[in-house]
Amino acid sequence: MTPKTTKSERALIDRLSALLVHDGSAVPFGDDMAALPGAPGQLLWSTDMIMAGVHFRAGDQPWELVGRKALAINLSDCAAMGAVPVAALIAIALQNDLTMADAVAIHRGAEELGGAYECRLVGGDTNSWDRPTVISITIAAALPEERPPVLRSGLRPQDRIFVTGALGGSILGRHLRFTPRVREALEICSRLTPTAMIDISDGLALDLDRLRVASGCGIVLESRLLETVIHSDARQLADQDGRPALEHALHDGEDFELIVGIPPDVSENLLAGLPLREIGRATDDIDGVQIRGADGTLTPLAPIGWEHFR
Amino acid sequence: MTPKTTKSERALIDRLSALLVHDGSAVPFGDDMAALPGAPGQLLWSTDMIMAGVHFRAGDQPWELVGRKALAINLSDCAAMGAVPVAALIAIALQNDLTMADAVAIHRGAEELGGAYECRLVGGDTNSWDRPTVISITIAAALPEERPPVLRSGLRPQDRIFVTGALGGSILGRHLRFTPRVREALEICSRLTPTAMIDISDGLALDLDRLRVASGCGIVLESRLLETVIHSDARQLADQDGRPALEHALHDGEDFELIVGIPPDVSENLLAGLPLREIGRATDDIDGVQIRGADGTLTPLAPIGWEHFR
Repeated sequence: MTPKTTKSERALIDRLSALLVHDGSAVPFGDDMAALPGAPGQLLWSTDMIMAGVHFRAGDQPWELVGRKALAINLSDCAAMGAVPVAALIAIALQNDLTMADAVAIHRGAEELGGAYECRLVGGDTNSWDRPTVISITIAAALPEERPPVLRSGLRPQDRIFVTGALGGSILGRHLRFTPRVREALEICSRLTPTAMIDISDGLALDLDRLRVASGCGIVLESRLLETVIHSDARQLADQDGRPALEHALHDGEDFELIVGIPPDVSENLLAGLPLREIGRATDDIDGVQIRGADGTLTPLAPIGWEHFR
Repeated sequence: MTPKTTKSERALIDRLSALLVHDGSAVPFGDDMAALPGAPGQLLWSTDMIMAGVHFRAGDQPWELVGRKALAINLSDCAAMGAVPVAALIAIALQNDLTMADAVAIHRGAEELGGAYECRLVGGDTNSWDRPTVISITIAAALPEERPPVLRSGLRPQDRIFVTGALGGSILGRHLRFTPRVREALEICSRLTPTAMIDISDGLALDLDRLRVASGCGIVLESRLLETVIHSDARQLADQDGRPALEHALHDGEDFELIVGIPPDVSENLLAGLPLREIGRATDDIDGVQIRGADGTLTPLAPIGWEHFR
C-alpha cells in the first residue's frame, strides 16, 4: 500500500494547476467551468461527480432526487459563469443492488430537471459494480449575446458582494432539491455587469475565500447583513445541535446559491427586484475575509467548509 | 434494500434510449460519441468511466498507466467517429489511501497521452472517499473538413469489413498501453469513405453485433481471415488457459482497435498501406453474425464479450 499522506484539496489542485494549465484559455484553470477549445468564445464545459455515502446516502431518498442533484450541481456551475446550459452527458457506476427501475429513475431525475432548462442528457456511459454508486455529469453551456464568462477572479476593491439566497442547513434536504440559480444568474448578467461569481458548494466561508484568492483582494462582511442570509434550515439545525445558526450559514455548504460581486457605482434602480442580498464589500485594506461586528471590530473568518481531502 | 433484478446493459440502454432520445441530433443515441448542441456540425463529445477492480487493479501498475487508460478509451471513441480530439475534462473519486503523488500521476498519465494528440485536460472535479478509485473523463472532438461523423448505423450489405489491428489477450497488459487509433482513423477517413465504425471495447463479437444491429444487416466473417487478426497475446493466453486463441480474439475485449466498414467498390490502390485487415462482409442474406469455415459451413457467432450487468 502507498503511505497515507497529509493532503488537502487545494494543495492537490495547486499541483494539478502546475501540470495542466495551458496558455490561451479564456477561463483560468480552476474556475467553475472551462472554455471548450474547438468552439472558441462560444461554449464552456465542466464536470461534477457525486458519490453515494459522500454526497448522498443510498436508500435515504428516491433515486430521482439523486439524479436530479447530479445534474443540479452542474447547472449551478453554468449559473456561476452566467452561461446558458445546453446539454449534458452522464457517466455512472451503479451499485449492483440497484434495480433497473432505480437506474432509470436516476436518469429520469436528471432528465426532468434538465428539461426545465432545455438542457438534455444526450449520451453517457453505464457501468455497474459492487461498490457505492457514482454519478459523473459533464455539462456544456453557451455564453449569451457574446458576453464574456463571469470569472472568480474579477472582484475589485470596493465591489459590493451579494448572495442570491439564504444559507445553511441544506443537509435537512435542500441539498437534494435546490433550484440552481441559472435564471437568476442570466437576469443578473443581463441587467448588471457582475465582476465575479461563484456558486456556494462548500460553504460561504470557503467559496468566498476562493473568490477572494482568485481576485487578489480582501473582503469585509457585515454581521448585521449576514443575519439576513441565515436560512430557516440553519436555525432548525442550530436548535438541534446547539451550534449557532450563523455558523451553519457560513460553513455548511451545498447551498448552491451564488456569490456575486457588483461594481460599487451600480444604481439601486438596477438592483431593485433582483434576487440579491448584500453581505459585504471587497477591499484592499485587509487580507482574507473578516466580519465587522455591530461595534466595528473585525473578526477573521476562517476558510473552513465542506472540503474533500480533509 | 431494493430487490436484485435480472438486467443487462443493453436492456438498460434500451430503457434509457426511450427516456433520453431527442429529435434532431446528428448522431443517434448510443453511438460512440454524441453531437454537442450549441456547436452544430462542429463538435462531438462523449464520456467514459473506469473503476478500480473493474477496469484496472489498484496497485498492479503505475498510476500513470491508469490515467493514460482513462484518456485512451475516450480517444478511442473519437477515433471511432473519425473525429479529431480537442480537449478533455477529468472527474475523479480518489481512494483515500492514494498519495498526492499518486493523484498527480493519474493526471500526468492522461495529460501526457493527450499531449501526443494536442488534446489537453482543461478542467475537472477532484473528490476523495474510502472506496476504490473512479475516473470519469469527458472528451470533445472536432469533425475535420466538415466531414460527417462515421456512425455505427451506416453499414450496408456487401460492404467489406476490416479491423485496424490484431485482437485478444489485452488483459496481459495491452489494455493499459494500447494506442488509440486516432491517427489511423483520420487517415482512413481522408482516403476512403467508411460507411460505419466502432471501437472494440467489449470484444469483436459483441461490438460487431452492436454495429450490425445499429445498421440493420447481417455479417459473414471468414474463418481464414479471422486467423490473421489473432494477437500474439491471445495465443499466449491460450497457452496458459487452454482455450482457443480465436476465442480470445473474438470475445476478450479492451482491444480498442476499430471495426471499419468500407463500400465494396473501393479500389485496392486506396486500401494499400492503410492499417486495415479484412475479416468479412456485410450481407442481407442472414441475420446476426456468422463465421464461414474453410468448408463453407456457417456457424453463428454469439454476441458475447465483456459486458456490464452480466
